[in-house]
Formats: sequence, C-alpha cells, structure tokens
Amino acid sequence: MSEPFVVVGGDAAGLSAASKCKREDPDREVIVYEKSQWISFAHCGMPYYVKGEVDRLADMLSLSPEAVAEREITLNRHHEVVAVDPTKQVVTVRAEAETVEQPYGDLLIATGARARTKPVDGTAYESVYTMHSMDTAAELRAHLISPETATADDDAFEAAYASVDVSDALAREPPETVAIVGGGYVGIEMAEAFRAHGLETHLYQRSDMLVPPFGEAVSEQVKETLESNGVTVHLETSIDALDGADDVEAVVTEDNRQPVDLVLLGIGIEPNTELVADTAIECGESGAIAIDDYGRTSLPNVYAAGDCAEKRHTVTGEPAWVPLGLTANRAGRAIGQTVAGDPEPVGKIAGTAVLKAFELECGRTGLVDHETATEAGFDPVSETITAGSRSGYYPGNAETTVTLVADRSSGQLLGGTIVGTDRAAIRINQVATALEAGMTVGEFEQLDLGYAPPFSPVWDPTLVGAKVLSGQLDTDR
Amino acid sequence: MSEPFVVVGGDAAGLSAASKCKREDPDREVIVYEKSQWISFAHCGMPYYVKGEVDRLADMLSLSPEAVAEREITLNRHHEVVAVDPTKQVVTVRAEAETVEQPYGDLLIATGARARTKPVDGTAYESVYTMHSMDTAAELRAHLISPETATADDDAFEAAYASVDVSDALAREPPETVAIVGGGYVGIEMAEAFRAHGLETHLYQRSDMLVPPFGEAVSEQVKETLESNGVTVHLETSIDALDGADDVEAVVTEDNRQPVDLVLLGIGIEPNTELVADTAIECGESGAIAIDDYGRTSLPNVYAAGDCAEKRHTVTGEPAWVPLGLTANRAGRAIGQTVAGDPEPVGKIAGTAVLKAFELECGRTGLVDHETATEAGFDPVSETITAGSRSGYYPGNAETTVTLVADRSSGQLLGGTIVGTDRAAIRINQVATALEAGMTVGEFEQLDLGYAPPFSPVWDPTLVGAKVLSGQLDTDR
Repeated sequence: MSEPFVVVGGDAAGLSAASKCKREDPDREVIVYEKSQWISFAHCGMPYYVKGEVDRLADMLSLSPEAVAEREITLNRHHEVVAVDPTKQVVTVRAEAETVEQPYGDLLIATGARARTKPVDGTAYESVYTMHSMDTAAELRAHLISPETATADDDAFEAAYASVDVSDALAREPPETVAIVGGGYVGIEMAEAFRAHGLETHLYQRSDMLVPPFGEAVSEQVKETLESNGVTVHLETSIDALDGADDVEAVVTEDNRQPVDLVLLGIGIEPNTELVADTAIECGESGAIAIDDYGRTSLPNVYAAGDCAEKRHTVTGEPAWVPLGLTANRAGRAIGQTVAGDPEPVGKIAGTAVLKAFELECGRTGLVDHETATEAGFDPVSETITAGSRSGYYPGNAETTVTLVADRSSGQLLGGTIVGTDRAAIRINQVATALEAGMTVGEFEQLDLGYAPPFSPVWDPTLVGAKVLSGQLDTDR
Repeated sequence: MSEPFVVVGGDAAGLSAASKCKREDPDREVIVYEKSQWISFAHCGMPYYVKGEVDRLADMLSLSPEAVAEREITLNRHHEVVAVDPTKQVVTVRAEAETVEQPYGDLLIATGARARTKPVDGTAYESVYTMHSMDTAAELRAHLISPETATADDDAFEAAYASVDVSDALAREPPETVAIVGGGYVGIEMAEAFRAHGLETHLYQRSDMLVPPFGEAVSEQVKETLESNGVTVHLETSIDALDGADDVEAVVTEDNRQPVDLVLLGIGIEPNTELVADTAIECGESGAIAIDDYGRTSLPNVYAAGDCAEKRHTVTGEPAWVPLGLTANRAGRAIGQTVAGDPEPVGKIAGTAVLKAFELECGRTGLVDHETATEAGFDPVSETITAGSRSGYYPGNAETTVTLVADRSSGQLLGGTIVGTDRAAIRINQVATALEAGMTVGEFEQLDLGYAPPFSPVWDPTLVGAKVLSGQLDTDR
C-alpha cells in the first residue's frame, strides 16, 4: 500500500484536494496539516465581517473539522510543516509538543499567501492591522466597536471549533480616524467597512491608480465613488512611516503628517514559499511555485496549488501568479483526482475578478494592461465605451463603462473590464468565456445575448464595446 | 446610377439597414415605407408602459422621422407596400391618396410580426386587446386609468411626431377583473402590469407550462411567483370563447365562466408575410421568410430581416424563427452593409432571451427542450441544480436554478436556462457565449469566472450546473 497523500495547508486548495482524493480512492490515507486553528474559511468575506454585514466568524467557515473527519481525512490543526525531504519522501512537522517526520507518497503544498507588510516602517504597532487571517479580522472588528455594544464572548467572535480572544481589542478605544495603506482589493473593500462604522477614512496609494489590475476607466470611477462616500483618497502618495509613541498615532508622508488611531495595511499579498526555499522545488518568475498542467512541481510526487502556486494563463499560455479563490478550489480538486489515479489538469487562469466598491460593481478579465499584453507578444488595441445597463427608458438604467482589449493583427480578444452600478460586474463573465474560447472581437460582436428592458438594452454594453473596438481594428488595417 | 434601396418596414431591422447603407454608401438613394405612423419603437417596453413604470409613449421611440431625414433617408410613413414584382423590380405602394409603383435596385422586406388572435373566438370586442403596436398599448393604458387621473392630451399618450386618440379608451370605466390569454412573454409581463394597477388578474394557458421556451424548472418558479403576486394561474385551460353582449363580459372555458371586464390576448406572434405570399419568395418550415447567411431571399436583390424572417441557429446550424430585438437590429445592419457593397453575414441566433416575472429573473439560450434537440440530431442529457447567487454568508444570497443541456456523446453544450431573483437572467449570457464557441460541458466547467461574495459564490451557479452535468455524462459513458 502506498504512503499517504500529505497535504500542507487546510484551506481551499488543500481541503479540496484531500476531499477529492479520498472520494475517488477511499483506501488511500490522506493527512492534512494546518498551521493555524482555522480551516477552509472565506478570505473574501472578511471585509464584510469587519463591516458587520456578515454577522459572525462562523458564517465564513465552509467546512468544520468534524466534517473533514467524516470524510475520513486525518486533519491536524496547529501543525506546521517546516521541511520537505524529497529524497526520503518525508516532511518534518512541528506541533506544540513535538516534531515528527511524516512519510508521503504524494505531497501537496497548499500554503497560500500572506499579507505583505514591507516596505512600510512602523507596522509593529498594536493598532496596525493586515487582513489575511480570521484572527486579525476578529481583532479588528472588536477594536472598531465600543465595549458597551459587545462582549468578548459575543457570537461574532466564536466559531464551533475555534475562537479568537478579542478581549484586549474590545477594551481598546474605538478609533475615530483610520488610514488604509494600499488601494487594491482589500483597501477598497475595507474603506467601505470603515465608513460603515462612521470613521474618518484616508486611503493612501503609491501609484496614480486605484485597483491597477482593473485599468484606468475602472480606477477613475472607483476613486470618484470612494470620495462620494466620504473616503479621502491620496493618490501618488508614499508612506514614509507609521509613527507614534506606544501605538500608531500618525501616517507620515513626504509633506504631511495625518493623525490616525488605526492603520490597515493592504499593500498586497505574496506567496508563502518558505517551505520550498531550501528544496529543489522551483519557483517561477513571479516568486510562486512553478507547476505543470497537472499541478506537479519540479520534484516527483510533489504538487502545489492555490495562492502559493502559479497557473497557466488562458490568454498568454504562460505561467502567471493570480491568487484567487475559484482557481484554488479547482486546482486542489484536480490534484486530488490526479493523486487518486485519474489525472486531471488543474485548469488555466484568466485572472477574472469582480470587486464591489460601495455601490459600484467592477469586473476584469484577461490582459488589460497594454504593457503586459505587449510583453506577451501581442499588439494591443483597446477601446472604452459607456452604454446603458438597461433600455434607456426603463427605470434603473445605469451607465456602464466597458473596456475591451484585442490584438491588432489577429483581432483576438485579450481582456476587458467593466464598471457600473447595475449588474455590471457579472457581465465580465461573458468576456471571460470568450477569452477561454479564443474568440476574436468580430466573433464576440456577433454573440446573441439576452435583451429585455429591465436587464439589458438591445446591445449589451459588452457588445457595444466590441462593435467600437472592431471598427477601430478595421480602421487600423 | 443604381435604382434605390427600398426598405419595407420602419422598425428595428428596416431602419438599421437603411441607416447602415446610407452611412456606407452616401450616394445611394434609400427609401423606407412604413405602414403605420410609428417608426423604430421598443416593442419590449410596452408592458412597462402599460404598467406605468415607463411614463410616456415617447420614451419608447428610439429614432424620430427628423433624425431619419437628417440621415438623408426618404421615409414615408402611412405607406403600405402591397405587392412586389421581382421581374420588373418594382414594389406597389399604397398611400392614402394614391397607389404608386416604386422601382428598386435592392429590396429589404422587414415587415415584422403581428400578434396572433386565432383560434380564440370573440376577439372583436372593444375591451379585448393584443400588445403589438404603440396604438393598442396607449389605448390599453388609457382604459386602465380613471378619467379623473388623466386626460387624452396627457403626455403619456403623445409623441413628438405621432399620437394616439385615447379619448374613447379614457372614457371607459377602468376594469376590475382582467384575463390574460396565453402564458408566454407578453402574458407574464402583462400580469405584472395589471397587478400594478390593482386588478384581479386571471392568466389562462392551454399547455401545462408557462413560458415553454424556458423549460420546466423556470416555468414552475414563474407560476409560483405569479401566484404569490396575486395572479390566478389557470394551466391546461383552453378558452372556448370570449363572451358578452356589447363588450366582453366573460372568459368561457370547458367548466367555468369567469366574469371579466377586459381581456389581453398574448397567444403568440406570427410573421407578417402577406407581401411575399403571391411572389416566388420562399418561406421556410417555420412560415417565416427563408434567407441565406447574408439575408438574401430566394429572389435576386431581395432581402428579408427581423421578425418576418428566419435566421440560422447557432447550435443546430438550421434555419429557425426566433423573433427577438437584438438579432433584428443586427441583421438589418448587416444587410445595409451588404447592399452598400461590403457583404456582411446577418449572424446566427441562439435564441437567447431574458424575462422579468415580477421579482423573478429568467434566462434561456440554445436548445432547452429535449424533443427539439433530438430532432436536430443530438442525444440530449440535462441536469438542473440550485445554487446560491452570492456567498452563502453574504446578505442577499438567493437561490438560483440552472438547467444545462448537452449532447451525450460529444459533450457539446446545447442550451440552458436560469432563474432566480439576484442577477440571475444576465448570467445566461455566459452560457450563450459558450454555445457560440461550441464548448463542451467539460470546457465550460473549467471557465475562470468572477468571484466576490456580494456578486457570486466561488462556483458560479452555471459552473455548478456544468459540474453536475459533466459528472452525469461521465457516468453515462
């Protein structure tokens, strides 16, 4: 009988793999090690939990240790895998009481990603938070609310199998002024959360764009929306330091010193790859673990999936690191099936993402940035249009801005973005589907999409975008 | 110089063709004949106009005679083309004062469709309406409102270039109980309109399903939603007659006589093909005018587009008659370009449609019905699943039911439906895009679609549907 399938990391990719493997090959021993107390939780829900729109930590848990045990998977929480020996095929596992060696037949590294804190100075203050674990999310929420309105054993901070001690955070004075460093997904979503608590909110972004992967047209509207919702947006503003005596008191920039009571760092995430640093497992240019189409790393019987690994890009065909939830789940599931003896590709990634910024819905997919498209060997042309979300005469019709990018010579659709307040984000899926199919703009323009006054005008905004871009491509020829 | 491009019908297809031809070939004379006083109006908006959600007739007009004149198109309203002589290449045009012959170089027949009234008896009563012209929409709305709340010269009944005399309709006593005969698009939308006016509303459908093109899963939810909104739904109930003395007083069925004050007939539409009946222009099996990929009929230089013509189906590759707004606009535009000397295919039709039924959003595309799929040479398998529209923990998450249909041997996706209350209908576009690309269910399952708690769960409902159907196909093999 083969050695166990060992999984490092008990989140989306790891538990998807473990579950699928066990379902397909019930006799195989499957062991999962998770460093923290949490398994399989909804990272993307945390801003809404801090906001209070999601009530309880427990709401964000999709799988309990009991449910994992029912699947006959051996789950070890509070166990950190600290070394891999590919020659002996063993991992070294450190728990509170002991360090053990565990042989593996197959190994999946699903260690995820973590919030970046460098290069900002002064991130060690108690009231400086990142948003990449359930613990910090709970502490941050506790910090924001007044002790009179909640207690530490409040439902909000408990889960059936784990809990966060938020008594210190609850005891702290709720902040009045907060700073968000970073204008990416987390920064935008947390701005909404902080404003819901009525806080004076400053958002600092080093570059001249918010959410850069969504391109200029979306970025501009996100900025306007943040501002109209009372967020002070500081673009092209680097943080020199976070400053204070016992705790953070100010955000220091080149020409200003903004007093704040709390800081949220949202300057991006990076893959957790320490485990492979001393091994022959190769990382790609992105810094994440390099894998083949089946999730195999450069070492035999060692796989990687989720936010610590690369994936092949739908449009470029090249490895890319785009840490997102769906592709982590899918890759984990595929590797579980492969390990069980029925090889399944992990799938590609188009980088499709949707984002809520207050009332604004944003979507993006594929190659949006011309520089990236050019590096990938394309000659990008793009057009941005604004069209209605519904028939013009129908109440609720809202301006929807679409950018589509295509290759000048072939007409191949490379990517797109969309932004608006009425069913805008979800429309990016039709563009993502077209990317997967390798459609040209001309083919996209011919799509028979749904039309009814309450939901869409005769020409869906993405079709209007395709028509205009198609015209531009014709002119260029 | 060539004879003019003559267009019969001044609605979506006709005016799209005229405008495109004139834009591409400004020297060409373009003449449009329109039988009624109206041009280019939004058929799909009429139920919402009757409901009162759309204020004015004028709101539904997308192009004015002045705008058409500015494009240097000769527009003749109140002119009916009554005959085509393909040998001499002339059409006979009847206007109030005279009947003339007009030579054509190219001819486009874009005569649209009309509401069916047969085989129901008693449709000549004053208070029996169909919904297929601006005039009847205006009269119906006037009839529903009390004379005290509006006058005949109310903004609601006027447009800049046309008007409807609604004084008789306004003078009539508003109804208290209404019947809708037919449970298709118009019947469902008008049920919402009548309920908004507080009327007791009965809906009669001969078959056992509402909106049959949307399949069983959607049909059931539409029925529940209609009922929960106070509509009495009579399925499998044929109307023997509409009955009354001076005006309609009752709907008579086999075992009942339901007193009503007003009846709306929504038993389907049929292509307006009288003009070609005495010509060599061929119609297809559907009864609509047969065309090739460029919109050409069986006669030289004679084209047809819009609701009077067939179109090639995306999935079957065969001619089909699916009268919808987008494809009419697109075909008209393509024919205008072809006539101007730059041939452009009219495009295919997937039969993608979306429908609002009170709070319910419904979508369908491709082949849904197994019988139709089997006739087209496929071996259909389908699965219906229910999944969330958002992350389960996020407020507003709503059950979304997806049905996907595929061919058993090839796995090719053939069609699908979707129904739910939260951004459900628009998701059908991603399925429609996949149909156009000829994707298999397995390929669809691999799509990288957007995920964010407020808009979509990790696995979009259509991906859940694909996963389950894919599993079923694997089992079948």
